[in-house]
Amino acid sequence: MQVTTQQELSNLIDEGFDRLSLPEAPASLYDPIRYTLELPGKRIRPLLTLIGCGLCEGDVKEALPAAIAVELLHNFTLLHDDIMDAAHTRRGQPSVYKKWDANTAILSGDAIYAKAFRQLQYYGYAEAYTKDHYAAIVDIFLDSAQSVCEGQAYDLDFEDKQEVTLEDYLKMIDGKTAALISTSLAIGARVATGDAAIIDRLRTIGKKTGIAFQIQDDLLDVVADPEKFGKQRGGDIREGKKTYLSLLALQRCSPEQRKRLSAILSHNDTSDDEVVSVIELYKELNVISATRSVIRSFYEEAMEHIDTFAASSYKDEIITLLNRLISREY
Amino acid sequence: MQVTTQQELSNLIDEGFDRLSLPEAPASLYDPIRYTLELPGKRIRPLLTLIGCGLCEGDVKEALPAAIAVELLHNFTLLHDDIMDAAHTRRGQPSVYKKWDANTAILSGDAIYAKAFRQLQYYGYAEAYTKDHYAAIVDIFLDSAQSVCEGQAYDLDFEDKQEVTLEDYLKMIDGKTAALISTSLAIGARVATGDAAIIDRLRTIGKKTGIAFQIQDDLLDVVADPEKFGKQRGGDIREGKKTYLSLLALQRCSPEQRKRLSAILSHNDTSDDEVVSVIELYKELNVISATRSVIRSFYEEAMEHIDTFAASSYKDEIITLLNRLISREY
Repeated sequence: MQVTTQQELSNLIDEGFDRLSLPEAPASLYDPIRYTLELPGKRIRPLLTLIGCGLCEGDVKEALPAAIAVELLHNFTLLHDDIMDAAHTRRGQPSVYKKWDANTAILSGDAIYAKAFRQLQYYGYAEAYTKDHYAAIVDIFLDSAQSVCEGQAYDLDFEDKQEVTLEDYLKMIDGKTAALISTSLAIGARVATGDAAIIDRLRTIGKKTGIAFQIQDDLLDVVADPEKFGKQRGGDIREGKKTYLSLLALQRCSPEQRKRLSAILSHNDTSDDEVVSVIELYKELNVISATRSVIRSFYEEAMEHIDTFAASSYKDEIITLLNRLISREY
Repeated sequence: MQVTTQQELSNLIDEGFDRLSLPEAPASLYDPIRYTLELPGKRIRPLLTLIGCGLCEGDVKEALPAAIAVELLHNFTLLHDDIMDAAHTRRGQPSVYKKWDANTAILSGDAIYAKAFRQLQYYGYAEAYTKDHYAAIVDIFLDSAQSVCEGQAYDLDFEDKQEVTLEDYLKMIDGKTAALISTSLAIGARVATGDAAIIDRLRTIGKKTGIAFQIQDDLLDVVADPEKFGKQRGGDIREGKKTYLSLLALQRCSPEQRKRLSAILSHNDTSDDEVVSVIELYKELNVISATRSVIRSFYEEAMEHIDTFAASSYKDEIITLLNRLISREY
């Protein structure tokens, strides 16, 4: 199937989700899942899966179950992360954790997880796939399920850790965010081909994009319009989270500034004035511009790898998507 | 491979767990998993998987990855259930939720879940299994992963529900406990055979055993030696949980007794005297003896189905195991 525009790919994904059959009962389990899946998400990961497949000259429709699986796995991590981060909003709406409670978010997350794996059974039953092919697709998925847990564990560890380096931080987001974006592309590619070199190239594109995406999330916490971003400005500062910006600022500041910044980041009832003063400090230390340029360089690395692919509508699509991500404001 | 005694089967399972490679880092993720897996558990489920395979004349060693998968899935449910039930002890030791915290228990549970699925990749790569065979094994596993979530959701629903019938209760434990015991036998059988009738028979044996096992757990909460059981006596009464005993008592008691029982079950700071008075009421209403006889009849139904199998060492083993379960005191 030739699908060329992003709109067509998005429609395909929407249709896939519409066909996803969730039982009615128990409502306490499936209603929060329905709620989560209906939140206005960007659905970047399943889009990447279809594009990954298309770039390898596969039939993108064949990658749809993997695409849905990846998005479900992503939603599973959101449900559980929102509990761990005590996040009240998600995509501008109350999180399941807030709207229901922690137990509901735990259990609905667990159920989405199984549902994600279930999608891959398509490759187990469709005749076009050999057993090795099916097993390899499942393996890619399992790797990323493990990586997201490890990344989230490093993230939680950071809360209590005094000295976190930018290197530690990059390792953490490599698991927490980049692994799944990387998998999104790689699993789509694996549906189409067994060529390890091409799959690795797509994995690298996903990794660079994922790291850029997460650092950008850190940046948007400080610079985005809270209305559009769906989160309160400076939420990370209030929570004292280690972000690319705070770690870079701690590296660049004077002992005096460091003392003040550490104090604000380590106490709980951060005032609006304190948030503003931290953002001012970021500007003074050129942290914001440096972060922008780091984001740009990761995206550029991704683009260089994309350049090695022959011209195709999918190549156009991934370039459009990356450009959209680079310039996103929320 | 012919393995005949339960000790040999248990050794096989222990060896399987010893070979399970868990990464060192992040320690915050894998230490709680190691801790959980080292708690003194009865490992009934993996034993049932090996026996299920043996009863179908399969090589029990071939069922080992499925057996480990089932026990890992069980441990995943324990980690998450302990958060939802705010359970401080597990197998006589502090639960992960208590020893670490809720976030650690959520995340370690998520990681065990992926590790459980990973075990099944053995069937994806071993040449002896066709693709259909591999996919069917995964399907059985996914069904039970879904059922345990649904059962736990019904259990949580019961907390806020006024009217819970014994029928509702049986449906809940069918998912929460019986599904995984049923799967333990069925997945072992599926490794050995594609014969749906035999697999179904083992599924039924597992279901009856699982229901008996859970009702027995409810009973042991009231009658077991707290030291051996690893839980405080009457914990379910203190928490006001709907159990087979409390539901049967509510069905059997006078309006006066009902008022008093409901009051005790619905308030939080239940005293030791109140616990004793509820247990007295259970005795007065013959709830304890009736529960014992219900447990026995479920076990007997399981035994009748076991009887249909030809004599073998595995048949002896499952009979021994069920007899041990029937007479367990903790």
